Amino acid sequence: MATMSSSRLEAFSDGVFAIAATLLILDVRVAPGELGNRLLQTWPSYVAYAVSFLTIGIIWINHHTVFTQIRRVDRLFLLINVGFLMVVAFIPFPTSLIASQLRGNDLEPAALAYGATLTITAGLFNLLWFYASVGHRLLRSDADPRVISGISRSYLVGPFTYLVATLVALVSPTASVVLFGVITVFYIIESSLFGRSA
Amino acid sequence: MATMSSSRLEAFSDGVFAIAATLLILDVRVAPGELGNRLLQTWPSYVAYAVSFLTIGIIWINHHTVFTQIRRVDRLFLLINVGFLMVVAFIPFPTSLIASQLRGNDLEPAALAYGATLTITAGLFNLLWFYASVGHRLLRSDADPRVISGISRSYLVGPFTYLVATLVALVSPTASVVLFGVITVFYIIESSLFGRSA
Amino acid sequence: MATMSSSRLEAFSDGVFAIAATLLILDVRVAPGELGNRLLQTWPSYVAYAVSFLTIGIIWINHHTVFTQIRRVDRLFLLINVGFLMVVAFIPFPTSLIASQLRGNDLEPAALAYGATLTITAGLFNLLWFYASVGHRLLRSDADPRVISGISRSYLVGPFTYLVATLVALVSPTASVVLFGVITVFYIIESSLFGRSA
Amino acid sequence: MATMSSSRLEAFSDGVFAIAATLLILDVRVAPGELGNRLLQTWPSYVAYAVSFLTIGIIWINHHTVFTQIRRVDRLFLLINVGFLMVVAFIPFPTSLIASQLRGNDLEPAALAYGATLTITAGLFNLLWFYASVGHRLLRSDADPRVISGISRSYLVGPFTYLVATLVALVSPTASVVLFGVITVFYIIESSLFGRSA
Repeated sequence: MATMSSSRLEAFSDGVFAIAATLLILDVRVAPGELGNRLLQTWPSYVAYAVSFLTIGIIWINHHTVFTQIRRVDRLFLLINVGFLMVVAFIPFPTSLIASQLRGNDLEPAALAYGATLTITAGLFNLLWFYASVGHRLLRSDADPRVISGISRSYLVGPFTYLVATLVALVSPTASVVLFGVITVFYIIESSLFGRSA
Repeated sequence: MATMSSSRLEAFSDGVFAIAATLLILDVRVAPGELGNRLLQTWPSYVAYAVSFLTIGIIWINHHTVFTQIRRVDRLFLLINVGFLMVVAFIPFPTSLIASQLRGNDLEPAALAYGATLTITAGLFNLLWFYASVGHRLLRSDADPRVISGISRSYLVGPFTYLVATLVALVSPTASVVLFGVITVFYIIESSLFGRSA
Repeated sequence: MATMSSSRLEAFSDGVFAIAATLLILDVRVAPGELGNRLLQTWPSYVAYAVSFLTIGIIWINHHTVFTQIRRVDRLFLLINVGFLMVVAFIPFPTSLIASQLRGNDLEPAALAYGATLTITAGLFNLLWFYASVGHRLLRSDADPRVISGISRSYLVGPFTYLVATLVALVSPTASVVLFGVITVFYIIESSLFGRSA
Repeated sequence: MATMSSSRLEAFSDGVFAIAATLLILDVRVAPGELGNRLLQTWPSYVAYAVSFLTIGIIWINHHTVFTQIRRVDRLFLLINVGFLMVVAFIPFPTSLIASQLRGNDLEPAALAYGATLTITAGLFNLLWFYASVGHRLLRSDADPRVISGISRSYLVGPFTYLVATLVALVSPTASVVLFGVITVFYIIESSLFGRSA
């Protein structure tokens, strides 16, 4: 059992990532009325779609990065991954709350729900990584120690960043939502620079 | 024909598992009204989502375990697997019934529908396994006899456990639903211990 | 270009098969009212779900069988496969028509739509197979001539069988729908026997 | 990091392509009323379904073609691919707008939205290709220079073609929609000829 390869875990995970991201389009809907105006007024849906799709895409890229370092999986690791995917697949729900409240007057609970989901996602991603990497439990024998500690450092920041952006919603929901967008843009820029230097 | 590999069966199955699990989010919906309160009152949806996602995830882990022992597939095995996936893909339907009745007054038929679906799922999973393993029909030649009989013993319990939890609904639907949750938690703990000991 | 392997074609196809089959559950919905009765009265939805899921599953098994004989793909073959998948992914639509009319009084157009979809599916499947097999265009060099001609014979029957069952709807829609079920059961039995003899 | 293989990128992309294409069926819905007539009057939905499914299928074929030339991926390339998929997964939304307005009186904004989505898709596809191919950054060392420049030439035409068809909507929305269909048919024919000559 201990020598299960990770290929089916990756296939199942890629499926959940792809579906969770693609299902986001189901929440982009235009209300009845003169179509030109309605299309323009639907902008919160487009922004919510883009931010969540890119967020799930970046989580997928990081999941991909982790698995370039992993040699084998065990049942507990599979289970942590299922729990992690359960939260990723939940992202479309708070996303639709944000989109529906971006110009409404109930943005605070929507921002709290979105932020809590992303904070838990980032927390479970760390659990996944540290379960695999502590004591080199599931890593490839030739895994580069500098890459390992680089991943550990950069992922640890995630849950705290999202927790802070979530708590900001208690003071200003709008500022919190802007922060979620800024975090996504930051990760995009960071990924781009990382990619160029490689 | 007899030497078909199992890779496409696994890809198709992973797709159905991933989609069935991810579609569960479509049933998490908030009614109109003051959002903060509504979000809190939606807890039955969250619980139903989590229980069903984790249940499908554990079924996927077990499917994965079975296929580490399998060398080849034949058409009848493919067909049993399609029937099995048909029931797995049905799980979101009784899940949404449970979620909608968890605070309603029609929980009994919802619990019976959910329990019957899970009982049949566990039954077909046994059929899949015993078709492959009896007389080592489809197993790898180096399959460990102890692992084989361990899998056989642990899977046989499944249908009976779910059948009992389903029949409890005739006396107390609430107790039945609690039992479904307990069974899921039990499988999670069992998987964790199995993983650690490996 | 002529030496493209078929692995991505299979992955994309498996995705469409898995999603088309799993989306069928979205059309199983219970009307409001006393849940126990409603659940029993929803039986046309369950039957329609089962017949279409199994039909898509059998198409997938046959697609799988074809690809055990194929060595390479070209762009025109990819294109025929996309057209074929377009019709497979359409199956949930006429299925929901049948389910909604099984006890209504507009069964004839629903049966015609379902039958036409299945007839075209079977026709495009033949196009796919004959494009690949005529002159051994895309087949493996060691493909068994008896297997090839066996596949050709058994697939050619499909479009005509479905066309006849469709035209029966003009006389008796109920008989037509029963025939669709019978064809599915026939394919299941045929697959089982094929599997045993292999 | 620089030597990541492209297999998971392809699996994730195939998932998004397959789901985006298959979700299109959710927008094919028949209004209540006498079913036979309604089914015939729904033709704009069928045409929109077919055009968008085939368009996504052709994009998938081209994505496939690009990856036969690619040896490795880096993070920036993964990110561009995520952005590209975000627009592909958006296609079902403007498709449903077109279908709902094909016999309505708000076709202009629907055609503009559809055309803009396809123009951006084609633009990001070029970005993906030129990021990979400029200076042979990510290409296989044995990539054929003639194939490379052939791909470059044929893909560059895409964004301009879609931009022109989009701008036509400002004068005649109907002509614009007809052009989208013509472009799809053109790509199908081009693919067929390419396939035969290979």
